[in-house]
Amino acid sequence: MDFLSLFVMDFIKQLQSPTLAFLIGGMIIAALGSQLVIPEAICTIIVFMLLTKIGLTGGIAIRNSNLTEMILPVVFAVATGILIVFIARFTLAKLPNVKTVDALATGGLFGAVSGSTMAAALTTLEEAKMPYEAWSGALYPFMDIPALVTAIVVANIYLNKKKRSAVTAMEESLSKEPVAAGDYSDQQDYPRTRQEYRSQQEPEDNRVKIWPIIEESLQGPALSAMLLGLALGLFTEPESVYKSFYDPAFRGLLSILMLVMGMEAWSRLGELRKVAQWYVVYSVVAPIVHGLIAFGLGMIAHYATGFSLGGVVVLAVIAASSSDISGPPTLRAGIPSANPSAYIGASTAIGTPIAIGVCIPLFLGLAQAIGGN
Amino acid sequence: MDFLSLFVMDFIKQLQSPTLAFLIGGMIIAALGSQLVIPEAICTIIVFMLLTKIGLTGGIAIRNSNLTEMILPVVFAVATGILIVFIARFTLAKLPNVKTVDALATGGLFGAVSGSTMAAALTTLEEAKMPYEAWSGALYPFMDIPALVTAIVVANIYLNKKKRSAVTAMEESLSKEPVAAGDYSDQQDYPRTRQEYRSQQEPEDNRVKIWPIIEESLQGPALSAMLLGLALGLFTEPESVYKSFYDPAFRGLLSILMLVMGMEAWSRLGELRKVAQWYVVYSVVAPIVHGLIAFGLGMIAHYATGFSLGGVVVLAVIAASSSDISGPPTLRAGIPSANPSAYIGASTAIGTPIAIGVCIPLFLGLAQAIGGN
Amino acid sequence: MDFLSLFVMDFIKQLQSPTLAFLIGGMIIAALGSQLVIPEAICTIIVFMLLTKIGLTGGIAIRNSNLTEMILPVVFAVATGILIVFIARFTLAKLPNVKTVDALATGGLFGAVSGSTMAAALTTLEEAKMPYEAWSGALYPFMDIPALVTAIVVANIYLNKKKRSAVTAMEESLSKEPVAAGDYSDQQDYPRTRQEYRSQQEPEDNRVKIWPIIEESLQGPALSAMLLGLALGLFTEPESVYKSFYDPAFRGLLSILMLVMGMEAWSRLGELRKVAQWYVVYSVVAPIVHGLIAFGLGMIAHYATGFSLGGVVVLAVIAASSSDISGPPTLRAGIPSANPSAYIGASTAIGTPIAIGVCIPLFLGLAQAIGGN
Repeated sequence: MDFLSLFVMDFIKQLQSPTLAFLIGGMIIAALGSQLVIPEAICTIIVFMLLTKIGLTGGIAIRNSNLTEMILPVVFAVATGILIVFIARFTLAKLPNVKTVDALATGGLFGAVSGSTMAAALTTLEEAKMPYEAWSGALYPFMDIPALVTAIVVANIYLNKKKRSAVTAMEESLSKEPVAAGDYSDQQDYPRTRQEYRSQQEPEDNRVKIWPIIEESLQGPALSAMLLGLALGLFTEPESVYKSFYDPAFRGLLSILMLVMGMEAWSRLGELRKVAQWYVVYSVVAPIVHGLIAFGLGMIAHYATGFSLGGVVVLAVIAASSSDISGPPTLRAGIPSANPSAYIGASTAIGTPIAIGVCIPLFLGLAQAIGGN
Repeated sequence: MDFLSLFVMDFIKQLQSPTLAFLIGGMIIAALGSQLVIPEAICTIIVFMLLTKIGLTGGIAIRNSNLTEMILPVVFAVATGILIVFIARFTLAKLPNVKTVDALATGGLFGAVSGSTMAAALTTLEEAKMPYEAWSGALYPFMDIPALVTAIVVANIYLNKKKRSAVTAMEESLSKEPVAAGDYSDQQDYPRTRQEYRSQQEPEDNRVKIWPIIEESLQGPALSAMLLGLALGLFTEPESVYKSFYDPAFRGLLSILMLVMGMEAWSRLGELRKVAQWYVVYSVVAPIVHGLIAFGLGMIAHYATGFSLGGVVVLAVIAASSSDISGPPTLRAGIPSANPSAYIGASTAIGTPIAIGVCIPLFLGLAQAIGGN
Repeated sequence: MDFLSLFVMDFIKQLQSPTLAFLIGGMIIAALGSQLVIPEAICTIIVFMLLTKIGLTGGIAIRNSNLTEMILPVVFAVATGILIVFIARFTLAKLPNVKTVDALATGGLFGAVSGSTMAAALTTLEEAKMPYEAWSGALYPFMDIPALVTAIVVANIYLNKKKRSAVTAMEESLSKEPVAAGDYSDQQDYPRTRQEYRSQQEPEDNRVKIWPIIEESLQGPALSAMLLGLALGLFTEPESVYKSFYDPAFRGLLSILMLVMGMEAWSRLGELRKVAQWYVVYSVVAPIVHGLIAFGLGMIAHYATGFSLGGVVVLAVIAASSSDISGPPTLRAGIPSANPSAYIGASTAIGTPIAIGVCIPLFLGLAQAIGGN
C-alpha cells in the first residue's frame, strides 16, 4: 500500500521535472502545429556535449574506483543487449504481417542505447537525490554494441539460410515450372545485406564478419563522443573544463534535446501507420519488459556486490531505451533489406517517449519504494 | 532641470551598456565592411532560448502572483496593439507615394512585438536595478497578436472594398472604353490576399477569418517558444534548468543577438531607398509615439493598481518595438499584396535600432526621473 | 639539471591539460575513423566567442593600463611578423621543388596568428597559474597584419620582376626561336595576382597597394570579432556579459575547438603529400624557430620594461602559431597563384599541432625554468 502510493506520487511528480516536461511540451507544441525548429547543428552539438560529459564523468569515476565492482553490471549489460534481440526474434518476428528482418532490426534498435534517454535518467536521479555510481553511464557501450552486433549477425544468418533454401527451391522449381512473379522480392539478384554483398566478391567466405559491425558502432558520432570523453576522463585531467562547462550546461542542453525529441516523436507517429500495427504494441510493451529484466539483473548485482539502487535504475533505463542517433545508420548499413520506417518509427515515435516518460519514473519509483522499505 | 540632467546622463550611460554597445558595434562593423557572420542556426537557437527564458520567467511569476493586478496592463497592451495599426492607417497611409496596404502592414509590424527588443529592455532594467513585475514579459502576446490581426483584417476589408469598387468601375468602364494599361496592378486576376484566395473558393463567405491569423501567430517560432516557456513555468517545476541554464546565459546570448541585429539593420538600410522616403520618417517617429502612448497608459495602471514603474517601461518598450522574427511571415501570408521591402526595411533598419537605442534609455530615464521625484 | 627536469615534467603535465588533451583526442579519433562531426556553424560561433572574449579582455585591460609598457612588445610583434616572411623567403623558397610564391604564402601564414592557438596559450598559462598582462592578447593584430601584408607585397614584387624578365626573355626568344610548350605556366596571359590584375587596368601604376590588404585583414571574421571586443572593452562597460558569459564559457568552447582542430589536422595530412616534402620539414621547424626568436625579443622587453614572463610566452606562442581561419582567404585573394594545398596543409596539419602541442609547453616550461631560477 505504502509501496503503491509512494510509486504513484513519484510518477506524477516526475512528469513535472524539467526533463519530462520539455519532452511532453515538445509533443504538445508539435501536435498544435508549432513552426518552432531547433536547427540540426544545435542538436548535433548538444548530443556531442551530453555524451562527452557522460564519458568524462565515467572516465573520471573509473579512474577513482574499484574495477571489480563493475564486472557484474557490465556482464548483465552485455547479456541484456543480446537477450533483447532474441526476445524480438521469438515474439515480434512471429506476429502476423511482420517480416523477420524488420523484427530483428527493431530488436537491435531497442537493445541499443539512447544517450539522450540515459542523460534524462541520470538527471532525474540527481533531481530525486538518489545516489548512483558515477561510472554507470559507461555501461552504455556494453549493452549498445552487443545488441547491434547480435541483430545484424542473426539477420544475416537468417537471410543466408533463407537464400540457400530459396536457391534450392528455385533449382527444384526450375526443373518443374517457371518462377512465379510474386516471388520477386525473395529472389532478386542484388545483394540484400552488406555481408551478402561481400560474400559475392569472396564467395568462399560465407560467415558474418563481426568486427566491422563493432568498428562501425564505435565510430558512430554518439559512441565516439562518449568514448572520447571516457578516454579523456581516464588518462588526462579534464576536471577544469568538466566543472566549468560540460557539467553545468548538461541539464539545460538536455531540456532542449528533450523538446526536440518530443517534437520528433510526434512527427514520426505517421510513419507507424505504414507498417503492421504490432509494432505499436511492441514499442509500448518492449521498453517496460526490457527494463524490468535489467532491473531484476541489477537487483542481483545490488545484493551480490553492492551495486547501488540508483545504478540499478540506470541499467534498467538503458535497457528500456532504444537508440535514436547512432543505431539507425549502423542497422541500415548492416541489414539493408530491413524497412527503416518500421524500426525508426517504432523507436522514435513510441519507444523513446515510453522509455523517458514511463520507464524512468517507473524504475525510479520502484527503486525508491524498495529502498524505502 | 534635475529631471533633464538625470535623463541626459542616463541616456549616455545606457549607450555604454553591453546591450546597446553590441547593437551599435554591429552597425559599425557592418558599415566598415566586416566579413563577420553569425550563423543562422545560432541566431535561431538564441531567439529560442531568450523567448523560452522570458516565458519561463513569466510562467513562474504568474504561478506566484495575484492575477487581478495583471488585468489593467493586459487591457492596455491589447488596446495599444490595435491603436498602433489605426495610427498607421490614418497617418502613414495618407502620405504621398505610400500604398494603403503597405502602410497597414507596416503598422501591423510596428504594433507587433520584438522579443529581442523586450529582452534588451528587461536586461537594461536589471542593469539599472529598476524593479519590474516578473510577469510583464508575458504581456508580449497580448499586444503582438491584436496588432497583427487588426492589420490583416483592416487590410483585407480595404482590399475587398477596393476590389468591389474596381469591379463596379470596370463594369462601367467596360461599357464605355477599354481598360488603361496602367491600371494593371489594381485589376489583376490572381488573388491579392489569402482571404481573397479563399473567398474565390467559397464565394458566399466574404468575411475575413480571424482565427487562422491568431493560430498562425501562435504557431510562429518566437511566440510558440515563449508560450511553451510560459506553460512550463505555470504547470511544471523548471526552476532547476531555469537557474542553471536559461537565466545565466540570457545576457550573453542577447549580446550576440544585438550584434546580429545591428549588422542586419545596417545591411537593410539599402532596401529603404526603394520605397517612399516617408517610411523613414514614420520608422523614426512611430516607436517613440507608440511608446509614449503606452507609457501614459502604463502610468494610469501605476496609479490605479500599483503597476511598477519598471513594468510601465516594459509596456512602453514593447509598444515601441516592431516585430523582426515572427511578424514578417505572418504579414506576408496575411497581406500578400503588401511590399515586404517597405515594412521589413522600415522595422529592421530603423524601427528596431530606434526602439533599442533611443526608446529604452528614453523610457527608463523618464521612469527614473518620475520615480526620483 | 634542475632546469631540464622542470621542463620535462612540465611538458608531460601539459599534455594532460584539457586544451592539449582535446587536440590529441581529436587527432586520435580522426585516425580511428570516427564519424563525429562538429557542425560548421558551431565552429564559427566558438571562434567568434573566443576572439570577442580575448578582445574584451584586452580592451578592458588597456583601459586600465599604462600604454608606455605596451610599446616594446608591440614593436617586437610587428618586427617578428615581418621577419618570419623573410625567413621563409630565404630558407623555404630556396629548397628544391618549392615555388617562391608558395613559400612566401606559407611564410605569411606562419607569420600570421591563430586565435585558437593564442586562446590555448592563455588558458594554459592560467592553468599553470603563470601571470601575464591581460592586454597581451591584443598583440595579435600587430603581428598578424604585418606578416600578411609583407607576404603579399613581397610575392607581388617578385611576380612583377619575374614577369618583366619573362617579357624581356620572351621578346628576345621570339626574335630567335618559338616559345617552348613547357614554359606555359610561367608566361600565361591571365593575371597571376590581384595587383597584377589591377595593374592591367591602370598600367601606369605598378606599385603594390598596401591599404587594401590591411583592410581585408581587418575585415576578416576573426580579426573583426577581436577588434570589436577590443573596442567594446575600451569604450563601453561590457563587464556584466564578460563575467556572466564570455569568460566562463571560454575554456569549454576552446576544448571543442581543439577537438575540431585535431580532427582537421589529421584529415589535412593527406594534402601535404601533394607538395614538396620540404613543407613538412618547414612546418615542424618553423613554429619552434619563430617562437624562440619572439621569446628572445620578449626577454629583452622583460628586462627593459618589465614585460611579464607570461607575456613573453604569449608573444612567443603567437609567433609560433600559424593562421588557420583569417589568413587563408586573405592570402588566396592576395597571391592567387600560390598553391593553397601547400600553405594550408602545412599550417593546419602540422604547424598548428606543433604550435599547440610542442611550443606552448616548451615556452611555458622555459619561462617557468627561467622564473624559477
